[in-house]
Amino acid sequence: MKVAIQGERGSYSHQAALELIPKAEILACSRAVEVFDAVESGAVGCAVLPVENTLAGSVGEHLDLLMERNVFVQQEHRLRIGHNLIAAPGVKIKDLKRVLSHPVALDQCRKFFQKHPGIEAAVFYDTAGGVKHVMAGKLTDTAAIAGKQAADEYGGRVLQAGLEDMKENFTRFFRFVREKRVLSSADKTSIVFSLTNVPGALFKALSVFSLRDLDLSKIESRPVRGKPWEYMFYADILSAEEKVLDRALRHLAEVADFVKVIGAYPRAR
Amino acid sequence: MKVAIQGERGSYSHQAALELIPKAEILACSRAVEVFDAVESGAVGCAVLPVENTLAGSVGEHLDLLMERNVFVQQEHRLRIGHNLIAAPGVKIKDLKRVLSHPVALDQCRKFFQKHPGIEAAVFYDTAGGVKHVMAGKLTDTAAIAGKQAADEYGGRVLQAGLEDMKENFTRFFRFVREKRVLSSADKTSIVFSLTNVPGALFKALSVFSLRDLDLSKIESRPVRGKPWEYMFYADILSAEEKVLDRALRHLAEVADFVKVIGAYPRAR
Repeated sequence: MKVAIQGERGSYSHQAALELIPKAEILACSRAVEVFDAVESGAVGCAVLPVENTLAGSVGEHLDLLMERNVFVQQEHRLRIGHNLIAAPGVKIKDLKRVLSHPVALDQCRKFFQKHPGIEAAVFYDTAGGVKHVMAGKLTDTAAIAGKQAADEYGGRVLQAGLEDMKENFTRFFRFVREKRVLSSADKTSIVFSLTNVPGALFKALSVFSLRDLDLSKIESRPVRGKPWEYMFYADILSAEEKVLDRALRHLAEVADFVKVIGAYPRAR
Repeated sequence: MKVAIQGERGSYSHQAALELIPKAEILACSRAVEVFDAVESGAVGCAVLPVENTLAGSVGEHLDLLMERNVFVQQEHRLRIGHNLIAAPGVKIKDLKRVLSHPVALDQCRKFFQKHPGIEAAVFYDTAGGVKHVMAGKLTDTAAIAGKQAADEYGGRVLQAGLEDMKENFTRFFRFVREKRVLSSADKTSIVFSLTNVPGALFKALSVFSLRDLDLSKIESRPVRGKPWEYMFYADILSAEEKVLDRALRHLAEVADFVKVIGAYPRAR
């Protein structure tokens, strides 16, 4: 099965895709829009993209695209993020002058840089891309911070594992497909809705869930493009009974300007 | 008055700081934590930091720091973001092989790169930093995308203005100080609160505002560090009457685990 990801081969997305689909044939796209294009055109069977990290927060661009494009989320997956210091074979920590990584990853490894003040934290566009760069250039004074998948992919050596300051570091991924098909095991539903900006609008919208004892595991706002200071809301609803959820969504449609179901899937544990 | 910003001189933050405090003496910090350190230690009188952009969404790291640190927001400011193509004097668009900028800025100028397929969009850590790099290296095949302030600061020439795809592109900045002092003109209050993760908790929390006809201009969730899949909420409350707001916040404290007022200020128009 062909699976599109955003970022380089060897990235955390690559790792997540393999955990979901062990025999995945990976299509690595440099931009998120290309991932959606590949799914919508049928060039791939599905895609795996990160939607939130428990330290950094949501990946707004990916949520926006899930709202805009014709795809459907069928699975969620939680990946434990372990950052590794990866260098070319033979290179030692004392040889290092700089370490490349994505700014979010660098920021999650502050203690390492405090312990090694002689090593510069250098911003790179991608975690795995840093390892690829180090290995392609046969650099001996530069390492990269990335997932272990990147070491496997490019032949790097893990000099030190567990570089992340906070061990409670997880990224949530969505696997999405072209056709809307709800699996019978689905008990979590993701929606996006927008409200007229009047006092109490969100309170009213949430009442459709509260009054039916439906639990939201997450709600979050995103700006509406082209309408400054207006917001849409993304919500994940935990639900077992389809009928109750259907009624709640019909009720929500009465108070919201716009409602879209972006996916339904079994909740990750 | 000394004013701390995050990022290079010539950045949009520099521009926002000057619009707020025309005679500001700028302290440019490379990291947001240094900005908060400077305010808390009294090394600067205040700081100006972006908290959200109408296209990209919130700056989560800055919201988290406003929650954690002992500072108080006293002013908000909306800056229209106009992206400019800036190069060394004499360099023309046809000479360019690449254009540097922060990934968010590059992403907001897609049409320019579609129109100029021969020019590579290259990720740089900072918008103004890109201009500084181009000018310091006297590069003749490279330009940068940044605010006009950066051209002034580093002696660059604006080759083309208005590169942004969406004109409705604004960034909201907060000016914050060390001491909590509410100006009499304040009619907007920013708070952060956390809730026990039980069904309907947010609905209950919002009721304290709705039942008093208090309007929230924004609400947004952020992950709680160290507690995966739990969230805090940031809310901006529009309010004229101090008494009503006080009562609402007391009521909120009954249903929330934690409530903090991070600022009170006159709303920007």
